[in-house]
Amino acid sequence: MKKGNMVIGQSGGPTVVINRSLMGAVFEAMKSDEIGEIYGALNGIDGILGERFIKFRDFSKEDLEIVMNSPAAALGSCRHKPIQEECEKVFEIFQKMDVRYFFYIGGNDTAETADIINKIARERNYELRIFHIPKTVDNDLCVTDHCPGYGSAARYVALCFMGNDLDNAALPGIKIDIVMGRNAGWLTAGAALGRREEKNGPHLIYVPEKTVSIEEFCDEVLAVYEKRGRAMVAVSEGMRDKSGDLIIKSMLKEQDSHGNVQLSGSGFLGDFLVDKVKKAYDGNLRVRSDTLGYAQRSYPTIYSEPDAKEAFEVGQEAVKYALRGDIDGSVAINRIGEGNDYQVEYFLAKLSDIARITKEIPEEFLTDNRNVSDAYLKYAKPLVGKLPVLKNLSGK
Amino acid sequence: MKKGNMVIGQSGGPTVVINRSLMGAVFEAMKSDEIGEIYGALNGIDGILGERFIKFRDFSKEDLEIVMNSPAAALGSCRHKPIQEECEKVFEIFQKMDVRYFFYIGGNDTAETADIINKIARERNYELRIFHIPKTVDNDLCVTDHCPGYGSAARYVALCFMGNDLDNAALPGIKIDIVMGRNAGWLTAGAALGRREEKNGPHLIYVPEKTVSIEEFCDEVLAVYEKRGRAMVAVSEGMRDKSGDLIIKSMLKEQDSHGNVQLSGSGFLGDFLVDKVKKAYDGNLRVRSDTLGYAQRSYPTIYSEPDAKEAFEVGQEAVKYALRGDIDGSVAINRIGEGNDYQVEYFLAKLSDIARITKEIPEEFLTDNRNVSDAYLKYAKPLVGKLPVLKNLSGK
Repeated sequence: MKKGNMVIGQSGGPTVVINRSLMGAVFEAMKSDEIGEIYGALNGIDGILGERFIKFRDFSKEDLEIVMNSPAAALGSCRHKPIQEECEKVFEIFQKMDVRYFFYIGGNDTAETADIINKIARERNYELRIFHIPKTVDNDLCVTDHCPGYGSAARYVALCFMGNDLDNAALPGIKIDIVMGRNAGWLTAGAALGRREEKNGPHLIYVPEKTVSIEEFCDEVLAVYEKRGRAMVAVSEGMRDKSGDLIIKSMLKEQDSHGNVQLSGSGFLGDFLVDKVKKAYDGNLRVRSDTLGYAQRSYPTIYSEPDAKEAFEVGQEAVKYALRGDIDGSVAINRIGEGNDYQVEYFLAKLSDIARITKEIPEEFLTDNRNVSDAYLKYAKPLVGKLPVLKNLSGK
Repeated sequence: MKKGNMVIGQSGGPTVVINRSLMGAVFEAMKSDEIGEIYGALNGIDGILGERFIKFRDFSKEDLEIVMNSPAAALGSCRHKPIQEECEKVFEIFQKMDVRYFFYIGGNDTAETADIINKIARERNYELRIFHIPKTVDNDLCVTDHCPGYGSAARYVALCFMGNDLDNAALPGIKIDIVMGRNAGWLTAGAALGRREEKNGPHLIYVPEKTVSIEEFCDEVLAVYEKRGRAMVAVSEGMRDKSGDLIIKSMLKEQDSHGNVQLSGSGFLGDFLVDKVKKAYDGNLRVRSDTLGYAQRSYPTIYSEPDAKEAFEVGQEAVKYALRGDIDGSVAINRIGEGNDYQVEYFLAKLSDIARITKEIPEEFLTDNRNVSDAYLKYAKPLVGKLPVLKNLSGK
């Protein structure tokens, strides 16, 4: 018995598995008689406001399976956080199109948008089932044990550090790699997941949750270099100074006073830190930096098996909740079982509990010597899937 | 019948498959009665001069197989181009250690070092079989059809651009990715290998072989943006201006006149180009840059199957040549068969023909509109292995 149409959209930064959530929901919806047309909103809320939709039933299963395995929001994404009036317009468009199911894939801003539209529908007494499907490489959503998208991005970062560490061991010096994460250091922590021996880097991990002065940073990096003849360092783009300000902010100030340098590029923090470490060292020193960049969230073929599976399932679950009679919520993950027995189950969280709030790394996942704790490794290892064993012969 | 000992070393920048060449040679040598001890020189010529060696026979086959599959020179590498006196010292150490076989894995500088040591051995009438085993992500060695290491690095770049292109399609704007290659644009050309449809980026490819002014660059990038609503751009770190100078050089000049900015970081060229494009555009524009960094040469698990196979075989072949009675040379690749019939055979090139010279991309591999030609695609596609098919739904 047909109840109405469905809209699904994607919002915020891409992940490698965001289209698995999309197709998890769409394939599940296709099984139901209750759902009529299945619309994909192009570029999230912007596409709804502009009434730009595709119809999933127009595509072949083969094409949709290719889409499912492709990184980055297949429908297009947006960074637009709509104001109240825009949410009302969205509601009116939904009403006009007889939309009774709305699924919005994204982070905490996306949950907030869903929450606002949800309230409007309720006030107007219009039956709209509205679900947030979580995705973010940042792993910073509340309530859920972890976020779909994190495991794959952390896997990319862990592998990148494994390779960079061998590179640094082969041609010793100081290597500083900048990892995504403005407010929380989850992805930077992932740099440690491929370490197997005491000699392996990253030897130091800087996350926004633990402040540091530039002087301390240089001292700590150079101390590792003195000890090992090399240093592999992981730095969150959101690294903060003692006053809690972004390091990048003090850097910008410094640059501005020097000259009229445009401060837009993504390589700046790394280059700034390289400069500082070189100046703090008395002598000639090989210091390099890479900023890991968009590859962290969109590199094809690098994904975590459990993450890919869960990303598909959160999409599927959202549709199941809607069809079972639930009205609204955000699909959340509960972990059951540790290590090799790692498994998950899903539950429905309140939209308002997900909206706006950022989950930082808890204290017990970090150590005082710029490292992650065993508790973090136990938490994160099942999320990234099995990592390869790598080895060199130089003892470095 | 034992003839003497063997030394093998690695030099220059890492590749993902450089240890396949190492183990190809070592496993082949282990089969022969003629070769006594098999020494690995730590950090190339530096390790020989410092007499720092490991013995391969001390390691288990299992460990050596893990090493074979690990990126970056397992023995450690060096950037040291030895002078004549140092080469003479190397020769004396070889004589003392009864070394009769020397294999040196690296680029054209490495071939030159091998050539110098070879001449010394001949002058002193000492029987030393000396072979250069080619590796470089840059693909810039002469004589050989292509270089082991290139296929895997180009595969990393191609996949990275496939993901970045979908990312850019999902959140439109201008994205400029900087690719390794100071003197030749081979790796940057590889950015095109994952394109399947006309809409796919990279839409523009800048290589050192084709000069460009900053003004032209901005005009061309903005023209693509006006046409498509987005632009994905590949730039060689060695991009050159109309006078043939590195763009990065004019950039450094400009920065110096502005302030006392240290110019060491790898993100600078990208940030500089972002700044220029933003300033050339009348309005608000999303322009970002990533510098692909060391991941291009050391990202684990991303390698081309044919490249991995050939890297192993060039190592194997070098030892076979030595045991067959050849005295010296560099193992080179000849291509037989096109497309799906792609195959290779090996031959021995003169050390002096490989030393010093850089092979640029030939004219017929490039088009006048900042793109690669079909001839390049035909040349390069068999080298990177099969790439996945990716797809989005937004039409971008």
